[in-house]
Amino acid sequence: MDPRIEEHAKILVEWSTEVKKGDMVGIRATPEAHELVVALYKKIAEKGAIPITVMSTEEMDRAFFDGADDDTIKRAPTHFEALLEKADVIIALRSPGNTKALANVDPKKVIQRDVAMKRVMDLYLSKRWCLTVHPVPALAQQANMSMDEYEEFVYNATLLDWEAESKIMNKIKEHLEQHKDIRYIGPETDLHASTEGRIWIASDGKHNMPSGEVFTAPVEDTVEGKILFDIPFLQQGKVIEGVRLTFEKGEVVDFSAEKAEATLKEIIEIDEGSRRLGEMAIGTNRGIKQHTLNMLFDEKIGDTVHCALGRAYKECNGTNESAVHVDMIKTMHDGEIIAGDEVIYSKGKFFYER
Amino acid sequence: MDPRIEEHAKILVEWSTEVKKGDMVGIRATPEAHELVVALYKKIAEKGAIPITVMSTEEMDRAFFDGADDDTIKRAPTHFEALLEKADVIIALRSPGNTKALANVDPKKVIQRDVAMKRVMDLYLSKRWCLTVHPVPALAQQANMSMDEYEEFVYNATLLDWEAESKIMNKIKEHLEQHKDIRYIGPETDLHASTEGRIWIASDGKHNMPSGEVFTAPVEDTVEGKILFDIPFLQQGKVIEGVRLTFEKGEVVDFSAEKAEATLKEIIEIDEGSRRLGEMAIGTNRGIKQHTLNMLFDEKIGDTVHCALGRAYKECNGTNESAVHVDMIKTMHDGEIIAGDEVIYSKGKFFYER
Repeated sequence: MDPRIEEHAKILVEWSTEVKKGDMVGIRATPEAHELVVALYKKIAEKGAIPITVMSTEEMDRAFFDGADDDTIKRAPTHFEALLEKADVIIALRSPGNTKALANVDPKKVIQRDVAMKRVMDLYLSKRWCLTVHPVPALAQQANMSMDEYEEFVYNATLLDWEAESKIMNKIKEHLEQHKDIRYIGPETDLHASTEGRIWIASDGKHNMPSGEVFTAPVEDTVEGKILFDIPFLQQGKVIEGVRLTFEKGEVVDFSAEKAEATLKEIIEIDEGSRRLGEMAIGTNRGIKQHTLNMLFDEKIGDTVHCALGRAYKECNGTNESAVHVDMIKTMHDGEIIAGDEVIYSKGKFFYER
Repeated sequence: MDPRIEEHAKILVEWSTEVKKGDMVGIRATPEAHELVVALYKKIAEKGAIPITVMSTEEMDRAFFDGADDDTIKRAPTHFEALLEKADVIIALRSPGNTKALANVDPKKVIQRDVAMKRVMDLYLSKRWCLTVHPVPALAQQANMSMDEYEEFVYNATLLDWEAESKIMNKIKEHLEQHKDIRYIGPETDLHASTEGRIWIASDGKHNMPSGEVFTAPVEDTVEGKILFDIPFLQQGKVIEGVRLTFEKGEVVDFSAEKAEATLKEIIEIDEGSRRLGEMAIGTNRGIKQHTLNMLFDEKIGDTVHCALGRAYKECNGTNESAVHVDMIKTMHDGEIIAGDEVIYSKGKFFYER
């Protein structure tokens, strides 16, 4: 087996979910992730814990949607819920065979199914859980890479010294929390917001692998200024690029995009919350050097910031509500991040690197 | 999708397990069976039932054994048990990627794990359950066939009119139950036993797919005579061939094999029960015309009989106990099956075909 797969499994079991003796561990995986599942079984067994794996693919979901009537779509999977109730740890592997298997399902059905799966999601989030990616051809294709390149990319992002990464992120978090606001400055960008009463979270690989971001929810009506997001991202099957947003009293008052502006417009107009920011964050993972249209990686790219229109995280004391949470990313090599009177980041370096 | 896969799924859902509205269905599958899982999801959803799939491979089991200490091997998977408790139907797909992944695991560990999995097995058997095969390269290889040939073989065996097959098997069962003994006659063969107080079961595709056998447990100490099993079979990784057994008062008093006689000897000497017959049966599936070293198929070959050394089925009122249950098969084209004074089968035909 590729030793990188074994290292990946070790990080998931030891760092992310801290599997210990007697734990009941649930894995969610596609057939394409079998090798990582095998590596996880060995590591989990070494800890004295017991694994079980649920196979889940979008092709299976598609077949379910094709066969189910409205009643069936709304029926909760009580046997799956029972499994999750007894689980201590959940490790979810994203490793699709085909990222488009659900493309032609009526979105209303998908939303109805999400409602029926709410208890499953709540149970997930009540455990020690982590989401990761196992490199597969469908994701290499989405990233515009060969499999060999994509494997390099994934393992450069994940096989880090997470204890050291965590220390860095927590240092940034501590400095940000000494101040009451945050400001991003750069080309066509000067955006600021109050963070008073809000919590900054260091995302250090416990729930996302890779991780590498420090994030908060800004005070909703204090976001002011403009920003240019120069990294493309996927939404509703479209690549949106070159987004410019202008905020007044927390609301988007002007916007444009170099590509797929109509999709951006749809997002902003979905509901009241989707025209406000639910998140402001700093990407810190320098193992990730390019975007791949996969938000799990892109929002963590080192030397970037990102903002999300829509739903805020309650853990940050955020209050913005929305049906969506759409992240948009900006490179910061030419930019500055300022909190209160402190320059957190400037000329490619954080305060602790100067 | 190959329409035969859809037909296979339909038989499993409608005939074997009779999935109905509101059922919670558990599927056990390998990655290699993904296509049949997809077909099953559509059929299950059409019935108004909810599927979940547990991924299970021998490579995963091997990794678990490699990592686990004695305590861990003995620990029951309570999260898996919880899932099974809530399930109404279990469909297990045999479709290995590699049939030899457990070849080098200490057999003691495998037995210990079986003990820890006892409640899982009991729960399985307490549901509407069915075991089937999805054609995969590893099984084609074991069967000495190309994938195309093997697919033909599997679907010829499974895609039958099971209602018609069931009628035939039940007709045979009814005739056998009008008598108090059973006798197999053929080349180098004249074996008889009492079946008084025992139950004949028509295995018509509810628990095995394919199926096609009518079986009972003979009265243990009444088996007398000799028999030549002319179809090879796999045991402990060895192909055993040309087995000749002689019985007196129910016990093997003489035995030989043209190939792997030492393995046959080991089996017979395992315990008290392994030198007695736990099963006598008639294969009725004429869709199966050749052996493939896979007992799920081989014991059902049309125009054969088989006997098993070892454990008897309680459902037949059998009492023989043993750690093993080893089936051995004999072609009957030149043979006769007689019950009481009735010729059940002779010259290639059952009584109802004459």
